[in-house]
Amino acid sequence: MTGKPKTGEFERIARFFAPLSKPESGAFSLSDDAAVLDLSAGHRLVAASDTLVEGVHFFGDDPAADIALKLLAVNLSDFAAMGACPKTYLLNIALPDSIDDNWLKAFSSGLAQGQGQYRVTLVGGDSVSTHGPLTLSLTLLGEIPEGRELRRSGARDGDLIFVSGTIGDAALGVKLRRGMLDGLVDEDRAWLLERYLRPIPRLALGRALSGLASAAIDISDGLVSDLMHICRASGLAAELAAPAVPLSDGGRAALEADPALVETVLTGGDDYELLFAVPQDRAGEIGPLASKLDLPLTRIGHFRAGEGVRVIDAMGDEIEIPSPGYRHF
Amino acid sequence: MTGKPKTGEFERIARFFAPLSKPESGAFSLSDDAAVLDLSAGHRLVAASDTLVEGVHFFGDDPAADIALKLLAVNLSDFAAMGACPKTYLLNIALPDSIDDNWLKAFSSGLAQGQGQYRVTLVGGDSVSTHGPLTLSLTLLGEIPEGRELRRSGARDGDLIFVSGTIGDAALGVKLRRGMLDGLVDEDRAWLLERYLRPIPRLALGRALSGLASAAIDISDGLVSDLMHICRASGLAAELAAPAVPLSDGGRAALEADPALVETVLTGGDDYELLFAVPQDRAGEIGPLASKLDLPLTRIGHFRAGEGVRVIDAMGDEIEIPSPGYRHF
Repeated sequence: MTGKPKTGEFERIARFFAPLSKPESGAFSLSDDAAVLDLSAGHRLVAASDTLVEGVHFFGDDPAADIALKLLAVNLSDFAAMGACPKTYLLNIALPDSIDDNWLKAFSSGLAQGQGQYRVTLVGGDSVSTHGPLTLSLTLLGEIPEGRELRRSGARDGDLIFVSGTIGDAALGVKLRRGMLDGLVDEDRAWLLERYLRPIPRLALGRALSGLASAAIDISDGLVSDLMHICRASGLAAELAAPAVPLSDGGRAALEADPALVETVLTGGDDYELLFAVPQDRAGEIGPLASKLDLPLTRIGHFRAGEGVRVIDAMGDEIEIPSPGYRHF
Repeated sequence: MTGKPKTGEFERIARFFAPLSKPESGAFSLSDDAAVLDLSAGHRLVAASDTLVEGVHFFGDDPAADIALKLLAVNLSDFAAMGACPKTYLLNIALPDSIDDNWLKAFSSGLAQGQGQYRVTLVGGDSVSTHGPLTLSLTLLGEIPEGRELRRSGARDGDLIFVSGTIGDAALGVKLRRGMLDGLVDEDRAWLLERYLRPIPRLALGRALSGLASAAIDISDGLVSDLMHICRASGLAAELAAPAVPLSDGGRAALEADPALVETVLTGGDDYELLFAVPQDRAGEIGPLASKLDLPLTRIGHFRAGEGVRVIDAMGDEIEIPSPGYRHF
């Protein structure tokens, strides 16, 4: 159809993206129809894929390098939640006419930075034109030793619920970005915006939790929504203590100014922290792990028989949370 | 951001897509952050990914089941070109508001049909909202016995160039679909439209060519463009005899009515036939293979030292072809 490539555009792509595949051995090639790769002995293949759409998942004027890093990070976060080791990725980009060489240069430099940081390599994908918004899909491939994968379905009655880092920052950062959050000091503003723009996949934590946590998920849809995913997969209910949810200084300042923002904290997504279940008799291992990783790991509730997520405020009263949804298949 | 799922939409997705993952063993799950799978012993992982955009790669009013089958087929065709065996896939869909349950039902039934036909299973992906056109990415995973992969880079000076099936049908079908091609009989019209709408990945041919062909590619960008890809990857030139290019009855009728359409035949993409190089001393094996597969395999030229693709008409004169471009990374 009209999907025929415009030569200039695609030579541009070859220029900016082909170099990203270079560090790998000859086993991989962007110039073939498909990529071929090997797994380590005794390992299983792991695959995850996420799509980001301009105006839906990022702002068109976010720095291109940050968009690239975020695209990598959201997929790496899926690997973190499973305790898996990322190796290579395929990139599918639908480019509107408005994307120019400068943007592509910055975008590919962001990918290059991420490749160095997370030791992954581009091995294939597709580049097409679109008359709609910039649409980016990334499929991450990697491996995990047999029998070591963390699942959503492994939580048991009585297991404790932990989260890494601080919660709600990214959703508050989006509100800031939209001019819907006022009165914060510069330092807090910068932190919240940073947390929206540059999520950090918790890969080291995920690997450490493999064999310790009974279930894990990364917080992409929102704390309550993702906790619900574990509940459904594990056939359990959860009690979540809202006052125990760890906040950053910026998050705390925002909530002090407007206590109604607790809903944003509990249901906002895109923090990419890990939410995980730990058997009570192994909870003592979490403190030392937090110290080792220099990352707060905070207990926020527990699982019990039943179904659904019950959120309790400081007075012990239940907080009603609007119905959260699904994002992934 | 606003990427938060609308519950109705994503329960809908779970309804239409989750069943597509059921036939597989417990090793796969759409409800986890990433899919885990095993390769056969002595095999390497193969991965390919393509994106289709409404209004660019398909018409919005093409039947949804056909769009689904085409999305599978274009990726399966990449596997065919490599001689690989497909196993599982991830699906990333960006859905505009206009997509309703009926469309999704038809689309998922198309995927189900393709899964049965090609023995592949959905293992993961992502579903997001878009304010732009329907955008579909599919990443196909599979395997190939070590050392058996067909590459673009293996052609040698003197190798003969073959294509499967008939060439140009899909591009002529698109012209028909757009009302830019008149005067054909109904049977020819139906054939050309069918070839655009329902490409057939040549998987059995690809597997048979592994160990016989020295290089292969599937024709997605166009005959000359894809031949150029092999030339570049192999460091060779090619001589292509335009009169030898195999045409369907519909294609021949269209060219008789308007000889200028030869350019459409030579440069139009989306046929998804295989273009491959065969050493002269093994060319005798191609006839029996064509009979066995019940698929025409036609010699259309040869490779020689140098660079570029030279297209010759019936008089031996060179036909100038507008510069073809890249499509894949």
